[in-house]
Amino acid sequence: MRQYSPVNFADVRIEGDFWRERLETVLTRTIPSQHRQLEQNGILESLTLPQPAPPLRIPRNRHDFTTQIFWDSDVGKWIEAASYALAHRRDADIEAKIDEIVEWLAEAQLPDGYLNCWYIGREVENRWTNLRDNHELYCAGHMLEGAVAYFHATGKRRFLDVMLKYVDHIMATFGPGPEQKHGYCGHQEIEIALIKLYGVTKDRRHLDFATYLINERGHQPPHYFDVEAIARGEDPRDFWAKTYEYNQSHKPVREQDKVVGHAVRAMYMFAAMADLAAELGDAELKRACEILWQDVTSRQMYITAGLGPSKFNEGFTEYYDLPNETAYAETCASVALIFWAQRMLNIELDGRYADVLEQALYNGALSGLSRDGEHYFYENPLASNGKHTRWAWHTCPCCTMNVSRLVASVGGYFYSTANDVLAVHLYGGSSARVTVGGRKVSIKETSNYPWSSAIALRIDPESPGEFAVRLRIPGWARSATAIVNGAPVAVAANMLHGYLEIRRRWQAGDTIELDLPMPVERIYANPNVRMDIGRVALKRGPLVYCAEQVDNPVAVPRLRLPRAARVATEQRTDLFDGVVTLVVDGRAAEDGRDGDLYRFAPPESQPATWTALPYYLWNNRAAGPMAVWIPED
Amino acid sequence: MRQYSPVNFADVRIEGDFWRERLETVLTRTIPSQHRQLEQNGILESLTLPQPAPPLRIPRNRHDFTTQIFWDSDVGKWIEAASYALAHRRDADIEAKIDEIVEWLAEAQLPDGYLNCWYIGREVENRWTNLRDNHELYCAGHMLEGAVAYFHATGKRRFLDVMLKYVDHIMATFGPGPEQKHGYCGHQEIEIALIKLYGVTKDRRHLDFATYLINERGHQPPHYFDVEAIARGEDPRDFWAKTYEYNQSHKPVREQDKVVGHAVRAMYMFAAMADLAAELGDAELKRACEILWQDVTSRQMYITAGLGPSKFNEGFTEYYDLPNETAYAETCASVALIFWAQRMLNIELDGRYADVLEQALYNGALSGLSRDGEHYFYENPLASNGKHTRWAWHTCPCCTMNVSRLVASVGGYFYSTANDVLAVHLYGGSSARVTVGGRKVSIKETSNYPWSSAIALRIDPESPGEFAVRLRIPGWARSATAIVNGAPVAVAANMLHGYLEIRRRWQAGDTIELDLPMPVERIYANPNVRMDIGRVALKRGPLVYCAEQVDNPVAVPRLRLPRAARVATEQRTDLFDGVVTLVVDGRAAEDGRDGDLYRFAPPESQPATWTALPYYLWNNRAAGPMAVWIPED
Repeated sequence: MRQYSPVNFADVRIEGDFWRERLETVLTRTIPSQHRQLEQNGILESLTLPQPAPPLRIPRNRHDFTTQIFWDSDVGKWIEAASYALAHRRDADIEAKIDEIVEWLAEAQLPDGYLNCWYIGREVENRWTNLRDNHELYCAGHMLEGAVAYFHATGKRRFLDVMLKYVDHIMATFGPGPEQKHGYCGHQEIEIALIKLYGVTKDRRHLDFATYLINERGHQPPHYFDVEAIARGEDPRDFWAKTYEYNQSHKPVREQDKVVGHAVRAMYMFAAMADLAAELGDAELKRACEILWQDVTSRQMYITAGLGPSKFNEGFTEYYDLPNETAYAETCASVALIFWAQRMLNIELDGRYADVLEQALYNGALSGLSRDGEHYFYENPLASNGKHTRWAWHTCPCCTMNVSRLVASVGGYFYSTANDVLAVHLYGGSSARVTVGGRKVSIKETSNYPWSSAIALRIDPESPGEFAVRLRIPGWARSATAIVNGAPVAVAANMLHGYLEIRRRWQAGDTIELDLPMPVERIYANPNVRMDIGRVALKRGPLVYCAEQVDNPVAVPRLRLPRAARVATEQRTDLFDGVVTLVVDGRAAEDGRDGDLYRFAPPESQPATWTALPYYLWNNRAAGPMAVWIPED
Repeated sequence: MRQYSPVNFADVRIEGDFWRERLETVLTRTIPSQHRQLEQNGILESLTLPQPAPPLRIPRNRHDFTTQIFWDSDVGKWIEAASYALAHRRDADIEAKIDEIVEWLAEAQLPDGYLNCWYIGREVENRWTNLRDNHELYCAGHMLEGAVAYFHATGKRRFLDVMLKYVDHIMATFGPGPEQKHGYCGHQEIEIALIKLYGVTKDRRHLDFATYLINERGHQPPHYFDVEAIARGEDPRDFWAKTYEYNQSHKPVREQDKVVGHAVRAMYMFAAMADLAAELGDAELKRACEILWQDVTSRQMYITAGLGPSKFNEGFTEYYDLPNETAYAETCASVALIFWAQRMLNIELDGRYADVLEQALYNGALSGLSRDGEHYFYENPLASNGKHTRWAWHTCPCCTMNVSRLVASVGGYFYSTANDVLAVHLYGGSSARVTVGGRKVSIKETSNYPWSSAIALRIDPESPGEFAVRLRIPGWARSATAIVNGAPVAVAANMLHGYLEIRRRWQAGDTIELDLPMPVERIYANPNVRMDIGRVALKRGPLVYCAEQVDNPVAVPRLRLPRAARVATEQRTDLFDGVVTLVVDGRAAEDGRDGDLYRFAPPESQPATWTALPYYLWNNRAAGPMAVWIPED
């Protein structure tokens, strides 16, 4: 069922200004600083044995304590991100740091292969007794992804071998056998990792075990987390989240048709389901993915492609419940949505998936990383009273390495290939050498995307031949034009599910001039989104804009955007190495500070010109109020 | 400085339909059912000694456990409410129940007078070691209020004597002396109780001790709660609320100019401050009260007179932060605001205080009690997605008895007297016999308030004489008229701070016809209240209205109230024994269920007639969505 394979990021050269800047920042600042943070926060020390008892740091509260249970995952995710950096350019210092960690892990590993530093250092007798809460398989999954990435980047097998031994232990412990535990992790993640491992080992057991974990999830009675809780002497009803919807084990995955619970867990699971649907040709899994995709994107997603309104469950609540100021919209969830979207594109080249992928990439995910590359958002609200600011680190640092591993491998989302098709999903200046229809083809895309509409592509097959180039036409690009070697192409007539197909005999030097006009769009929310009633958001190309206090003399909550207001673009070379801001000939409500709290007349407003900035860039200059959805007037 | 004294509720006969119904419900249903709940929830059992160890019920979580620390207060508050019921009509059964409780308390009391059942039953050695968190003086305060009320209602001294012994112990323990603790309670309340006690005993020590607690609060360094935490071996910085603003001890009360922290604590404290300002003639305290009053009512109060937007601290956040759906707006806070408002009126007869008193009474406080008198709101949000419903009881039942003691004594808010002034604050059908200018005067007020505008008053002095009747003209009544014995009175010319003064020689049979026209008002929030931008609320007379799903076929979030829409009143005899609803010729936004989540065009709307109900009555027929602030269109 897999039709398309993404072109690996290591084979894609990022050349455009937009992503080059983000990539260089991540390579030169984020990844080294994350190693320092892992060190300074005791996370690296937690891998070294013997561990002092009591724990390294006295936790100040319950939350601090429980996040220590995830520390292995943070290390695994950093190694993954750092390995992607190494794939761009080898770095002996980074490799030495990773090798040091791998040796700690090898030393910590028990003779039977078990390798979770938290349990080994504290209460190894309790290992595998609380999959619901304690993240052992989640940690294993992230370490496995790190090991696979490090092997790809360097060819070094040491970490991979350590993890293979651990995976053997895990596969012996869990499974359908009478002596095995029929369990799966409370936090999905290892499924994705096992499929990546299968990509390296081609060992069918690895794919089968991922399939087992997905298929077993939610089967009942008895529910595995009930069985496990009772074995611990606990009442399963005391589960703090009160429902297994929290971790998407409330019913078998193929029966799920509503996206519920913890957003990151859901997205990781759906990504694995899409992977398995492709690998196994499993139409039922594909159908479940399609239903769930439609559910989340049509009723539960912020305009930034942020997911999960609620802090309580770090996840979903009810349809159309999308509060702005209290939005949780964890960075990890938007990153994981990108993972899922890419895997849906592997099954079916449909612009719906790529549109959401791009929406998440440029907004809800990218917002998670500061301009300086060393500060982060965990939550990505769509409005702020000024108190929401970036962290240098977080008690639960999951988002930090999720955004660095995403940006470090961003080139992997630009291109896919099928038999005789080269699909282009993202623009912004890149080149790649791919194989299409059995022949090597170089592609080079030059543009100032997402700031400008003009995109030039050059297609250089090693020998002339017929194949199709499918260029994504984003849903917002309603008047796209294309010219091949100077001759216009009929766009509408050649559209296939959001992609413009140009099927011809290509030869070296062929060019495509694609234009994706990006007027400023006023976006309205579905009327069921009660928080956005009477409000409008501004979008240009893939970028959602926001009004940030630092750009505006009038208090952000007083800004108004009447329906007739003119909105102009402005090229600002003085901001963030060049961005396009929006200048609104809008209005400002009266300053109510000394006025009555309640009054008989509506507030008045005066003309006011104000500025909007791409959402992903907010809170990089000063703390202050911000809003995506602006009252019309 | 005290200029006015409220006429005691026991001397006011409630005769009008509106309050008669609420009062009878509380007397016949609420108070008996609350005793049953105290019994069924183990709260009465917790007073009996010896207590089983471990505690009666295994707490299921930390919150359950800590609320047991307040149980004495719940009992005290019930006795207070029940005593108010007895003042209306004696009831041997209720008295027997109270007497039984009093004997338990007498038995529990330690020889030195100490009387906190939680500590006595569990860890008496730790008494008075954590005033910040553990509510000992708060519990004492509520029991003391119960004892005073029971004494007033029945003349029985037993409970009062028990409490006097406890108060002696408390006054020996706390105070300025070198051997005394310089402490005060984390939850203000006992200050009000001590002033009530002083009203009975005329023992100056009781007033002085209340003054000490108020004056000592917030003095530093050292801060008492720091001293106490260090003595417990704790780091004061580990205080969960992180700031002493939480309990208004961040600075001395006279220096406070912003209302912060836990809303109920703040209101109880301000009530005591106003009491003391009146008793002591303390201009500095009065000034602090005025500043704090202006602060909270002009920047931090819901239109329902609900207070405290945040669940985190059960209190205040920042100016104009008034979210509707997540409003905490605890019933207790609106009840306590009424207490404070009345005490401000004692100092200065100003309609601003009475307006807020009435606003809280008819909206944010009254909403806390169900129509059947046996269900409650703890939080009083101004919008709901349908999940907010009334409780039959609450883990923390503070609000239940706050609303019953309020309604059982509601007559006490109708009238005040000064030397030669009789002030009428509230209307709705009542009569009283008061002393004005040294002569007995009977007053009888007849109206269908708050449903109709016509109010008839009859003034019957025992002998003719000159004095002033001051009739409150609510702030919303912008075209009030008055006729005395058939002759019109010039209202505007005789207004004194929100009261129409009619000073004349009154004689038996004199009548006043007051008319307070109550057109439907559209109310807009200050533009700084970002949640209410583009929205309007409906108010008629003192009642805030809301759209409730049960009255409307269109989903509440889809309702629209264009500026030009006609709003008619409708007398509905079929609802709640007769209410006035509002019928809006408004609009309804399109049903977006199957539409795009985000779109380029604003939602459309169609004409729709919809109904609004007084806010205090919502959630009495069915669970469902509700909204006070309706989008204009």
